Amino acid sequence: MPHGAGGRARQGEAAARMSRPRLIRQPPRLPHTERVSFVPLRWLDPPAGPAIELLDQTRLPATEAYVTCADVPSLIDAITRLVVRGAPLLGIAGAFGVALAAARGDDVRAAAAAIERARPTAVNLGWGARRALGAYLRARAGAAGDGGRAAFLAALEEARSIADADRRACAQMAAHGLALVPPDARILTHCNTGALVTAGGGTAFGLILAAHRAGRLAMVWIDETRPLLQGSRLTAFEAERAGLPYRVLADSAAASLMAAGLVDLVAVGADRIAADGSVANKVGTYALAVLASHHRVPFVVVAPSTTIDPATPDGAAIAIEQRRSEEVTWHAGTPLAPAGAVAYNPAFDVTPPGLVTAIVTERGVIDPVTPGNLRLLRPLP
Amino acid sequence: MPHGAGGRARQGEAAARMSRPRLIRQPPRLPHTERVSFVPLRWLDPPAGPAIELLDQTRLPATEAYVTCADVPSLIDAITRLVVRGAPLLGIAGAFGVALAAARGDDVRAAAAAIERARPTAVNLGWGARRALGAYLRARAGAAGDGGRAAFLAALEEARSIADADRRACAQMAAHGLALVPPDARILTHCNTGALVTAGGGTAFGLILAAHRAGRLAMVWIDETRPLLQGSRLTAFEAERAGLPYRVLADSAAASLMAAGLVDLVAVGADRIAADGSVANKVGTYALAVLASHHRVPFVVVAPSTTIDPATPDGAAIAIEQRRSEEVTWHAGTPLAPAGAVAYNPAFDVTPPGLVTAIVTERGVIDPVTPGNLRLLRPLP
Repeated sequence: MPHGAGGRARQGEAAARMSRPRLIRQPPRLPHTERVSFVPLRWLDPPAGPAIELLDQTRLPATEAYVTCADVPSLIDAITRLVVRGAPLLGIAGAFGVALAAARGDDVRAAAAAIERARPTAVNLGWGARRALGAYLRARAGAAGDGGRAAFLAALEEARSIADADRRACAQMAAHGLALVPPDARILTHCNTGALVTAGGGTAFGLILAAHRAGRLAMVWIDETRPLLQGSRLTAFEAERAGLPYRVLADSAAASLMAAGLVDLVAVGADRIAADGSVANKVGTYALAVLASHHRVPFVVVAPSTTIDPATPDGAAIAIEQRRSEEVTWHAGTPLAPAGAVAYNPAFDVTPPGLVTAIVTERGVIDPVTPGNLRLLRPLP
Repeated sequence: MPHGAGGRARQGEAAARMSRPRLIRQPPRLPHTERVSFVPLRWLDPPAGPAIELLDQTRLPATEAYVTCADVPSLIDAITRLVVRGAPLLGIAGAFGVALAAARGDDVRAAAAAIERARPTAVNLGWGARRALGAYLRARAGAAGDGGRAAFLAALEEARSIADADRRACAQMAAHGLALVPPDARILTHCNTGALVTAGGGTAFGLILAAHRAGRLAMVWIDETRPLLQGSRLTAFEAERAGLPYRVLADSAAASLMAAGLVDLVAVGADRIAADGSVANKVGTYALAVLASHHRVPFVVVAPSTTIDPATPDGAAIAIEQRRSEEVTWHAGTPLAPAGAVAYNPAFDVTPPGLVTAIVTERGVIDPVTPGNLRLLRPLP
């Protein structure tokens, strides 16, 4: 415990600071790129390539191993097996996959379609593949001769530009969010929102990294995040690599940390934000929001503005995916519950806007969370 | 989901019913004994004995296997390996262990001392052993000749009387608590409080069994209870055996159940209750209490009156045991977190009396939870 006393006072200051309406629409300073000690996806030029090198996330945290995909079928296999995962990173992987097909002289349209089918519910994957395919086709149409080399380079450039934009967004979210982090902050987070799932430092975890670099991080409390343990397996791995002061905890232990005055800020990501400011995120997020409100701890959501979905009016309009019982009732081939046990296993929950202190995007901080402020920051048409 | 609509209305009624001050000091009807389909501890007379048969809780839920202890060293081994566990049941095991030593003609004083040392922090274990030793020594002092047979029978009778008293207490708690259970109740519980750790139906789980028998149970939601999974491993096993409608869930998913209006009552046990009504119980209990209060769901603690500790003035006086990191960071020999990860792993948390709707004991229901009402029901001197 880095701080036994003084937590309540700091919480009070942080809450007071965050309670005043504020909307920052321009980045307060030039974004910088977070440096991390591992790269979840890397393009390899010849002679090592053309290929895509992936950090094998299925083997974390025990082993840091890399998989080299020299053709599209091996990339699709890696995507299917969750070697590579996370919405922003899948978009980047899809785009580089199309560039890889182009480099090899494969049928690029067929490759893009196959990549998109690898995980049909991951919208970013198909989006990234289609972006790179579009660049490829435009370059080929405009080039002299068969235009293969120019078209490949256009697809590669598009993939790199998607990754760069994601990296910039991470840096901008961190820069904006830093204004909400008090000195000597003890920040609690949930699930995995870091460099493993983005091209930069991450969303909520990117803010935590920035707080560390700014000398403001006393502790990051990492919810293990049952049932799939993205917190203890992946976020703790990132915290360990970045040299952060951290502890992992059972999700249900967060309440006693707050009661003891040991949490100054809760920072989480978002899967979707409705037009009214309701936040869908990994199950357990809503519990943290209720607990943070009860203990007067600021609760901050960090997500790119593309997460705001104007087509979803409110939290009730968000369908919650129910996942397999076995995620709760089995672990690593051993049963955790009697034969026949059925689990209630929602993937997400919904936090109403009244429990969210602020939403940090790459385009500014939404505070307070109102439909009007959300409209100002949602993606441009 | 047994009920999509109407949950909120029922919650409101239950909350209204429970908000009126009430103190019942006499059992409303004769207690009955809960019948369950397994027995965690059984005394075996000759020819199968003298011996103690134990349900091996380390092999649940995968396998229902029994261990027969024909001497005190094998009982001590079973206690040490957590074949038998849980405060009330350990008290009973300690007493039967002394009877077993007496039946075999062992040094009974030495046996009682050895049993007590098997788990030094389990106060009930030594208490049960000393109760049986006292009965043995009194009978031997009063008997003609060496009095071995009479003294053995006195120790056995004392062990049976401890078990009977625990069984009666379970039945009385269930009978009192039933008044707090609405029709078609969806009850959420945490940890393991049933027939595996008592001689009867249990504390909170005993109430859930009674609600089922009374035709009032629509669903029991079972928190898996990280890190040791007593909910999914043990409570779900008991629910399966008793034929209850149940689902297991990650602890952090309980909040979304409450938000959906699918929880009518939260029922938990207690490890210790301070004089001001603060309840120490398995970590995660306090989170449920905050969430229940936020959603206006009644939060009921079911525990024998011996759990009330007049020597502990309030919640701040309860020391919280921090347990090993490995309970959180490892499972079944595989790491769940990076090497070097340290966990915040409190065994218990403390729920303040203001969040507790009622405390159900074998001697009556404490509602509202005030120091004065607690004094009326705490153990007689």
